[in-house]
Amino acid sequence: MTSLTRGTAARRVAYAGARALVVEPSDTEPPAPGHVRVDVAYTGICGTDLHIFHGDMDGRVSPHAVIGHEMSGRVAEVGAGVADWRPGDPVTVLPLRWCGDCPACRAGHTHVCHRLVFLGIDASGALQNSWTVPADTLVPLPRDLRLDHAALVEPTAVAVHDVRRAQLREGEHALVVGGGPIGVLIALVARRAGASVVLAEPDAYRRSVAEGLGLTALDPAAGDFADALDQWTGGAGAEVAFEVSGAAAGVTTAVTALATRGRLVQVAIHPVAREVDLHRFFWRELTLLGARLYEREDFTTAVGLLTEGAIPAETLISRIEPLERVTEAFTALESGAGVMKVLVDCRTGEGREAR
Amino acid sequence: MTSLTRGTAARRVAYAGARALVVEPSDTEPPAPGHVRVDVAYTGICGTDLHIFHGDMDGRVSPHAVIGHEMSGRVAEVGAGVADWRPGDPVTVLPLRWCGDCPACRAGHTHVCHRLVFLGIDASGALQNSWTVPADTLVPLPRDLRLDHAALVEPTAVAVHDVRRAQLREGEHALVVGGGPIGVLIALVARRAGASVVLAEPDAYRRSVAEGLGLTALDPAAGDFADALDQWTGGAGAEVAFEVSGAAAGVTTAVTALATRGRLVQVAIHPVAREVDLHRFFWRELTLLGARLYEREDFTTAVGLLTEGAIPAETLISRIEPLERVTEAFTALESGAGVMKVLVDCRTGEGREAR
Ligand SMILES: [Zn+2]
Ligand SMILES: [Zn+2]
Ligand SMILES: [Zn+2]
Ligand SMILES: [Zn+2]
Repeated sequence: MTSLTRGTAARRVAYAGARALVVEPSDTEPPAPGHVRVDVAYTGICGTDLHIFHGDMDGRVSPHAVIGHEMSGRVAEVGAGVADWRPGDPVTVLPLRWCGDCPACRAGHTHVCHRLVFLGIDASGALQNSWTVPADTLVPLPRDLRLDHAALVEPTAVAVHDVRRAQLREGEHALVVGGGPIGVLIALVARRAGASVVLAEPDAYRRSVAEGLGLTALDPAAGDFADALDQWTGGAGAEVAFEVSGAAAGVTTAVTALATRGRLVQVAIHPVAREVDLHRFFWRELTLLGARLYEREDFTTAVGLLTEGAIPAETLISRIEPLERVTEAFTALESGAGVMKVLVDCRTGEGREAR
Repeated sequence: MTSLTRGTAARRVAYAGARALVVEPSDTEPPAPGHVRVDVAYTGICGTDLHIFHGDMDGRVSPHAVIGHEMSGRVAEVGAGVADWRPGDPVTVLPLRWCGDCPACRAGHTHVCHRLVFLGIDASGALQNSWTVPADTLVPLPRDLRLDHAALVEPTAVAVHDVRRAQLREGEHALVVGGGPIGVLIALVARRAGASVVLAEPDAYRRSVAEGLGLTALDPAAGDFADALDQWTGGAGAEVAFEVSGAAAGVTTAVTALATRGRLVQVAIHPVAREVDLHRFFWRELTLLGARLYEREDFTTAVGLLTEGAIPAETLISRIEPLERVTEAFTALESGAGVMKVLVDCRTGEGREAR
């Protein structure tokens, strides 16, 4: 892959208001001290990007901002004072900048900093040929991890963080409520951790994708769902549940499925308060754990899982569109029909010779 | 204190339906193998006993059952095969019987056994002169702990369990929402654990009791409540909150007060599902922990706290009524006016010479 030479006609995707993504030329500036310019290879798009596309996050995303935060690429150019990186190094980016000084940071929880800047939402993102980021956001990739697969490191790190938050142990039963990309990734990471995993998902296509990955997927609306869970857990309930649906019914499904002392990890965003059976939390001594984003160790683990093949990236990537067809990529993901992960190929023409 | 001789006219309080407690004679049978007959000294009454009194638990409490589960006393007589106890030993009772075979028991959480028998609700309780219990429910009391004070071991064990479930650490901020007896006990146990404690309680009398114990008590409905919490925690929020109110507003108060990664312990019973801001759980990575009853180590800790004076029993015990005035004891607690803990003196006439 040839690096983009400075001054070459680079392109970026600018968010120009609801449903408007404009591919436009961009300047390729030399990186500032402590920064690194990365030639982006692939950028995945996710539910958050769709929210931005729909105009739902205009309060955070300025017009002409470049979005995108699930990516892979190679170091193109390093700024002054950057000693650890060389042009050509394969990398992904941990897209978080924290303040270091708020109560969350002072308590060591920098990933949920009260003044968190998320690259690709609050600052420039990866949907461009060339992306300049602070050197300390880079995460190294092994040479034998394909760059299209590596675009799945970020969503996999979300799943790794959620599983880690659950303190999931080998042999435990884990119910994943919601079979979108993050739900499937959580199920795969939980399985890799030695858990017995069931996915609850009402959509038949999503269930078929999960089953194609060797997962057990059940329809939570089916009449025999409760019986199936009982049979699976010998009547004890699941030690762990992940609520990834964002729906009121998903919360009830997860709470009801839990064993005594079970842990429920709240992964999805619930736009309104939900009715929660607090008596059951009391009676069975349940635990609810909010889980957001990831920490660096989750990225490292995710890189390992993708490299060893525990995450079957090839099956999860439904479609790859070139940068100029970014709008088609978004509408394909939006339709949801037959689609799990959609990537945008951000390489320049010269770079496309090799994956 | 003279033990009740077998055959003496013993008395017990029988629950005879809503608002009807009957003091009636009872037989003093020799204890069965593995059992111990205890001369009850004092029995405390609590919110659960009031629920029973109101007829709200008739599904669990049979007519003519003896209720009461917060007690102190002395071993009177031991059954065959009981080697560890001698007549005169001061004791309290851990009023739980578990099955040993359900999923909760098999996972080691016997106190939340799916077939739990709670002595004083599901089986005969302590509101009587003489109570026969399985020997393994007994908990030894030190000779220098007064028996009226020892009637507070059980509710103190609840508070100890809640604080332990929170994994409360020295120097942390703990908000206790609800200033009834359990709320005050949690506040005292949390303070003893080295936390900075604030109690949120709308009732002025309860706040004054808490303040009399050196606790900071605030009215959560006051306009400056949020500011006061901010000032207390330096704007960071409380690392731990205990929801002891059972009210919808209490849940909101507790969730709102928590710091990033804060832990909310759900202590109170919520009869209906409550709206919970799950987005905040996600965003700040909060934890909700249901906490119910206690384990033996909580009883041991509670005995120690009462013995060392960390729980000022003398101040917490508002009133002691003799067994024949048990109805007055219940109505005094029910009125709530100027009352924290109410005990029933279950000693026989001969036993009353000494506390
Ligand atoms: Zn994403
Ligand atoms: Zn910060
Ligand atoms: Zn009680
Ligand atoms: Zn059991």
